Order: sequence, then structure tokens, then C-alpha cells
Amino acid sequence: MERLIFVTNDDGVSARGLARLIEVLREFGNIVVVAPETAQSGMSHAITMSSPLYLRKVREEPGLEVYACSGTPVDCVKMGLDHLLADRKMDLVCSGINHGSNAAINVLYSGTMGAAIEGGFYDVPSIGFSLDDHSLDADFEAAGIVARQVVAGVLEGRPAVPLCLNVNIPVARPEDIKGVKVCRQCRGHWREEFFCRRNPWGRDYFWLTGAFKNAEPEATDTDEWALAHGYASVVPIQVDLTDHAQLAPLGAILDR
Amino acid sequence: MERLIFVTNDDGVSARGLARLIEVLREFGNIVVVAPETAQSGMSHAITMSSPLYLRKVREEPGLEVYACSGTPVDCVKMGLDHLLADRKMDLVCSGINHGSNAAINVLYSGTMGAAIEGGFYDVPSIGFSLDDHSLDADFEAAGIVARQVVAGVLEGRPAVPLCLNVNIPVARPEDIKGVKVCRQCRGHWREEFFCRRNPWGRDYFWLTGAFKNAEPEATDTDEWALAHGYASVVPIQVDLTDHAQLAPLGAILDR
Repeated sequence: MERLIFVTNDDGVSARGLARLIEVLREFGNIVVVAPETAQSGMSHAITMSSPLYLRKVREEPGLEVYACSGTPVDCVKMGLDHLLADRKMDLVCSGINHGSNAAINVLYSGTMGAAIEGGFYDVPSIGFSLDDHSLDADFEAAGIVARQVVAGVLEGRPAVPLCLNVNIPVARPEDIKGVKVCRQCRGHWREEFFCRRNPWGRDYFWLTGAFKNAEPEATDTDEWALAHGYASVVPIQVDLTDHAQLAPLGAILDR
Repeated sequence: MERLIFVTNDDGVSARGLARLIEVLREFGNIVVVAPETAQSGMSHAITMSSPLYLRKVREEPGLEVYACSGTPVDCVKMGLDHLLADRKMDLVCSGINHGSNAAINVLYSGTMGAAIEGGFYDVPSIGFSLDDHSLDADFEAAGIVARQVVAGVLEGRPAVPLCLNVNIPVARPEDIKGVKVCRQCRGHWREEFFCRRNPWGRDYFWLTGAFKNAEPEATDTDEWALAHGYASVVPIQVDLTDHAQLAPLGAILDR
């Protein structure tokens, strides 16, 4: 029986990275896409609570159905897997290919990874793909080749579920990518700079910009290191945010 | 010197839970609030990337300044700590009190906890408070008492930073709350049900509703257990999403 693969992204249903991912995945099975109508970068794990969702069929051909949803990337996953395909057995969930890296702490802000993490709640492998290039005309050739290799590895290697992978691909020609490296999330966070402008009616507004501060630039087992050294990084993701090491000392302070 | 406490929430600048939290915190120091203009429930760790942000002073009196920001809860934290207060030393960040529980996997979807987690990136203790009651007329009396107790414990006990706490308070009269319990995030996730309606122009739309499936209802060391048994739960939060146990087996499949 043909495999069934669910696909979404956060750059919206017409993004080039999504088109490239669909192209790659079609050789592995039938594809159902539910992607956001509009760009949803930075939407993290957001869901739509105060307004309803619309779903629109964009395209249908043998082996491929594409829908656009008015909500967030996570809404798309829920709409796809709990509504549209609620009765069908899924083999894989993929999200991307994102325009821009989601390595290190970016996994928290990323709509691409929000969707991939949500996909991991459905007992099938879930993979988010991101290319370390924000530009609209980014070259997705190498990213497509890496995606193909990781998907083949997961489908053949059958790692244990729950499984969610954060895959990031450096900007390079395919022949210059050194390989695929399983690694851990790099520590660090963003510090922001706000650019102030004045609108035509005299009111100030601010653009959020910033820079990532790598807290462990020397470590060689992180996703940031892998990307900086020409490797595609693969970080397995889990969602227990408990800081287990702090349970005992905090208990001594707060339990009563 | 007087302490400086930064406060935000996700229900918006005029929410009753925020008013209660401000009231509690004023006895501990001076307060600066940057809260969203509008309700931002379910916004998770989202940031605003494609539009600019507006900031508006809502109120100023000795010991208290309140601003409203047009963005998400995480935007409010960044705007507050990297712009408005960039030169001042902070002692504590608090978010809430949310209308609705953020225990278990809800920590991922929560704007309240998105803001608290972001606050934890600034080298001061950060605490998110949520009351297990979504109603607009929820009774925040017990939640305020618990918040006071946890804040006092953190300020006096000086646990190690980085520190981010996810505090959830059950619905009860103050005298019926059994205590405060440091515990871990309960495993489980949501399964959704979509309610379909038709708009006046004949197009279907969907409301996202669902139910949390507790994957370990018997475990007695989780936040869900604590809440169900009359305790306020306190989960220490960390942001390394790496599933360290999967690194080796995945490396064997994918590294090349």
C-alpha cells in the first residue's frame, strides 16, 4: 500500500520551500498538504482560539491534495490530522522547507517547528526542515537533497516514536555539504534591537530586530556548530520542559 | 534600593488576572508592566516579524508604570526588557495571572508561559501564573495568595538562575488549597474536535475545540495530579528541547 505523508509549513501555501519539499516527498508516497494561507513566520506553537478557521482546496491531482487553512501552522496540523484525515493512517509528517534557520533557540519561535512538534503527537515520525537562508530567491537544491536523504533514513531505519526531528541545512551547493550530523540544540538566546520610525500621523512604531548570542561557540556537538561547518544538523526534539535538576532544590524552598 | 519587577500577561492589559498580580507584586517593589493591547491566548512563543509594534503608556503613578504593546506576549517582554528598561537592573519577571490552566503540554501553547520563558533569558527569576478557570468572572483570591507565597519564596530563597517557573493554581477558596507542590510536567497531548458552521455567504468554517489526554493519570509527581488534588503546582522550566536519549540511536541511522 502506498504511504501517506502529511505536509505543512509556516511560509504559506505558495512558498517555494514548500513546493520543493512536496517534489521530494512525492517519490515516497501520496501527499496531503494543509498549509497556512498567509506567511506565519515566528508563530511558534500558536493556535487560533478566538476566531474560526477556514479551509480551502487549492489543488488536486493523483497522489497530491493541497489545502490552504486560514490559521497558524499548528492549526494546519490539527485541521489536517484530527479533521481532514482523521480516519486515515499516516506514515510521516513533514514541515518546511523553511526560509531561514531554526537551529538553537529558534526552535522555540519557529512556526515550522511548532507544526513539526505538533505532528509528533500523532504516533508517526515528524520532521521539520529549514534552510539557513531567509531570502525569497534562496536556492533549495541542496536542502531538497538533504530532505530526501533524511526522509529515506527515517522511513528505512524506523527509529522509535515519538520522534520529531529539527533538520537545518546550510547554504551551500549540494557537493559542498559535508554530511548529515545528529546533534544537540545549541545554548544561547536573542538580544533585540528596536528600530524606531514615525508614521505619517506622528506616532512612533518599532521594528523588532536582533542578534543570536551563542552561549557555547566552542562546543562541537551542537546544531550551530554543524551548520557553521558545512553539515546539515538533525536534532531530535522532546517536549518535557521540566528542568529535572531544579526539582529538589526548589522543593526545599517552595514546597509547603 | 527598591526592587524592580517586570510584569506581562497574555489576556491583555485590561484583564482582571493582571490587575490581581500587580496588586500582589506592589508590596515587593516597583512595577513596570508591558502587556498586550488585545487578548493573546494560545500565542505560545510567537513574535511579530512582518509588522511593526506600537507602545502606549496606559497609567503612571508612584511605583507603577503600565504600557500596552500591539504585539504578542513575547514581544512585550522583548520590548520591555531590551528597549524600555534596557539600562535598568531587573529583579523579577512575572506573567499572568492567566485565565485558564497552563499545566502539562499547555505550557507549549500558552502565551503566558511564552512570556515567562522569554523573561527567563534575562538572568533574573521569571514566573508564570495561571488559574485553572477560563471564565471572565474567575475568582483570583486564592491565586493571588499563592502568587504572593511563591514570589516571596523565590525572592528570599534565591534559587539559581536561569529560573523559570510554571505555577498553576486550582479553583478553590484559599483555605481549601492544600499547599504548593514542586512537580514535573505531566505527559499527554490534545486531540481536537472541529465544530463546523456555515457563514451567511454559504462558506463552512471551523471552531477548534478539543480535550487533553493525560498519558499518565496514575503518576503522583505531575502538575496535573497536583492540581486535581487541590495543590498549586510549580514546574521549573528549561528550554533544551533535545531528546538526548535519541542522539545515539539516531546517529546510527542518519549520520553520514
